[in-house]
Amino acid sequence: MRASRVAVLSTGTELLRGRSVDTNLASIARALETIGLEVDYHATGPDDLDRLVEEIRLASARAEVVILTGGLGPTEDDFTRRAAAEAFERPLVFQPAAWNAIRSRFRRFRIPMASINRRQAFLPRAAGILPNPNGSAPGFAVESAGRFFFALPGPPREMIPMLQKRVLPRLAAAFGNRARFRLWEGRVFGMPEGSVDEIVRPIVARRRGASYGLTVSGGTVNITLRVERGSPLPLVRALRRKLGLFLIGPKSLEETVGDLLLRKRQTIAIAESCTGGLISHKLTSVSGISAALLEGLVCYSNRSKTARLGVPAELIRRHGAVSPEVAAAMAEGIARTAGADAGIAVTGIAGPSGGSKKKPVGLVWHAVHYRGRTRVERRVFPGDRPAVKDRAANFALDLVRRALLKG
Amino acid sequence: MRASRVAVLSTGTELLRGRSVDTNLASIARALETIGLEVDYHATGPDDLDRLVEEIRLASARAEVVILTGGLGPTEDDFTRRAAAEAFERPLVFQPAAWNAIRSRFRRFRIPMASINRRQAFLPRAAGILPNPNGSAPGFAVESAGRFFFALPGPPREMIPMLQKRVLPRLAAAFGNRARFRLWEGRVFGMPEGSVDEIVRPIVARRRGASYGLTVSGGTVNITLRVERGSPLPLVRALRRKLGLFLIGPKSLEETVGDLLLRKRQTIAIAESCTGGLISHKLTSVSGISAALLEGLVCYSNRSKTARLGVPAELIRRHGAVSPEVAAAMAEGIARTAGADAGIAVTGIAGPSGGSKKKPVGLVWHAVHYRGRTRVERRVFPGDRPAVKDRAANFALDLVRRALLKG
Repeated sequence: MRASRVAVLSTGTELLRGRSVDTNLASIARALETIGLEVDYHATGPDDLDRLVEEIRLASARAEVVILTGGLGPTEDDFTRRAAAEAFERPLVFQPAAWNAIRSRFRRFRIPMASINRRQAFLPRAAGILPNPNGSAPGFAVESAGRFFFALPGPPREMIPMLQKRVLPRLAAAFGNRARFRLWEGRVFGMPEGSVDEIVRPIVARRRGASYGLTVSGGTVNITLRVERGSPLPLVRALRRKLGLFLIGPKSLEETVGDLLLRKRQTIAIAESCTGGLISHKLTSVSGISAALLEGLVCYSNRSKTARLGVPAELIRRHGAVSPEVAAAMAEGIARTAGADAGIAVTGIAGPSGGSKKKPVGLVWHAVHYRGRTRVERRVFPGDRPAVKDRAANFALDLVRRALLKG
Repeated sequence: MRASRVAVLSTGTELLRGRSVDTNLASIARALETIGLEVDYHATGPDDLDRLVEEIRLASARAEVVILTGGLGPTEDDFTRRAAAEAFERPLVFQPAAWNAIRSRFRRFRIPMASINRRQAFLPRAAGILPNPNGSAPGFAVESAGRFFFALPGPPREMIPMLQKRVLPRLAAAFGNRARFRLWEGRVFGMPEGSVDEIVRPIVARRRGASYGLTVSGGTVNITLRVERGSPLPLVRALRRKLGLFLIGPKSLEETVGDLLLRKRQTIAIAESCTGGLISHKLTSVSGISAALLEGLVCYSNRSKTARLGVPAELIRRHGAVSPEVAAAMAEGIARTAGADAGIAVTGIAGPSGGSKKKPVGLVWHAVHYRGRTRVERRVFPGDRPAVKDRAANFALDLVRRALLKG
């Protein structure tokens, strides 16, 4: 069954000027997905009455459900109420219930109310009020002939609760919960998107009503698998057979490594040069990791590598700080001095300066020391300084993941 | 003079499903603003050939300039090339120059190339190639009768350099630089948005044709000042007088700290507990910082604090690891053991677990040791684990900034 068409409109000149980034589309899409509705179309328009009327009319013609965010404030460039009134050809009328809600909120927080706030109580005739527990602007809903228009405030912390409490129940009642399909999300690390696609496509094609999408970030290819009926697990098993250790599962690389460490009761310590603390930062985003992560060291200076980790100064002199020998000595040194089961080390040239013909910007040596063995891997990453840091940190985390799975 | 109408199109079913948030609109808007062009309209469409053709036609009818991001990958649901060909009624032709660029990139990074990558070299007839130095997908431009269509890849780190190097110069040449107004951007750290607004509003109101906008992120309030003619500097000086040390200037907190360290030839070392490496990560995003940053230590375990920094075990036992005493001992310990001019330390409870009535989640002690003095500051930050880490890291960087400016 085809889901109804849903359109999302974002209003706000600040979005079109790049002063802020709209996260409401993503929040709305994820919320609607839980009741089986999909956003089909999204547009962003300026704070301009005529343009907003045009966007609302266009969206209402294309979609059965229109959810608009923004433009509900009390100032003169908040046009949503007037635009909806014009688009649906209903006059704006004063709604005492909305006015009472606005006034009592200001009283409760003892905020002085500007007289212009009275504007927020004028809504299109016969519109339903959507109370806003976290802000002054009430939202509203206009329904006619099985079509729905919802106006919600722009700030996410006001918008999201209203979406959950008011909009989703109304749509679920009107359309029924259409969540027939099931989703599975997984990640592949260390394989380019094109190669992942060549593996996933024929597997998914064998099953009727199954589809997938790939997105890429920081060297990870994210797979979203969707099956119309039944469980996605047989497909996941087929993917796992083909992708092997490249397939991570639904969690992020750092969560996967964190889970493995905690489950296997292994401790870890990290020595970072060019990644500058990013590996530690990623791993400490995992709640509870303090039971496994003993310490991280950002040893930018050679003195730090020698004094803290016992990397011989002679080794650095002979091979350079960016070398497989020093990477290995750093991984062994951090595991030994921190008293950890596993040690990770990264040394490289994040750029933009510091590169040479033999050691170009982007060159990174990664080492993992675990169970008496040290594995060293070289990569040259494309991109600027943040990109090289991110790729190298992820690659190091993946090396640990593989070491823990094998060990 | 009215700027030409510019439309931005984002493509990608993942955007409409809420799998990722589109930041490209904001980046494009800010870049265009520098040559006096304003985005007037933005739409997001799914990876669907017919829909994409429809969006391109609609945008091209409404705007003289259309910039589309996404859908340039090698897989079958990357439709931008075909959709543009159809919308502009030009056949797709194989462009050997694009193919050579793709192949040489894969060779340079020794990545195995999937045969489907060849698709990326088929572009609409007479389209100009926009080289992509940071990815495999070349972009393209279609011009006719003074109207412009640019197709750029979706990943920001590929898209932004192409926008800067290829799109802006072409548009500036075609339309002239229409930037009559001038912009100034600054940041305020450590003051709530409402208070910043109360200071900025009357100062900006005194000057005709001047306006401003505020946005907030991670405890920083960003000010964008816009003046219609003349220089924004008199206004900036007035802001500086009122905001004092709270005003950072146009650069980020970490860049500001990095610049100060390098200019004053001071060295620094960092000891982090709850921020888990994030301060080091932020500071090492500054190119050239290796001259100032000696080392960072993520001392998650008490043993690490004692063994590496000389924090007395007795001190930790008596006051707890999250205490002003331990924060100060960490800052002094890292400066001493690393041999650095300045030492930063952070210890706190990032959550979600580990909090108590006396020491709630979000409690963080920050310390800076510099020129024989140690300053300790307590804060309780709202939000989840990533938010607490980010706020605490920024607060610590701000303490160093203030110490360096005073010292």
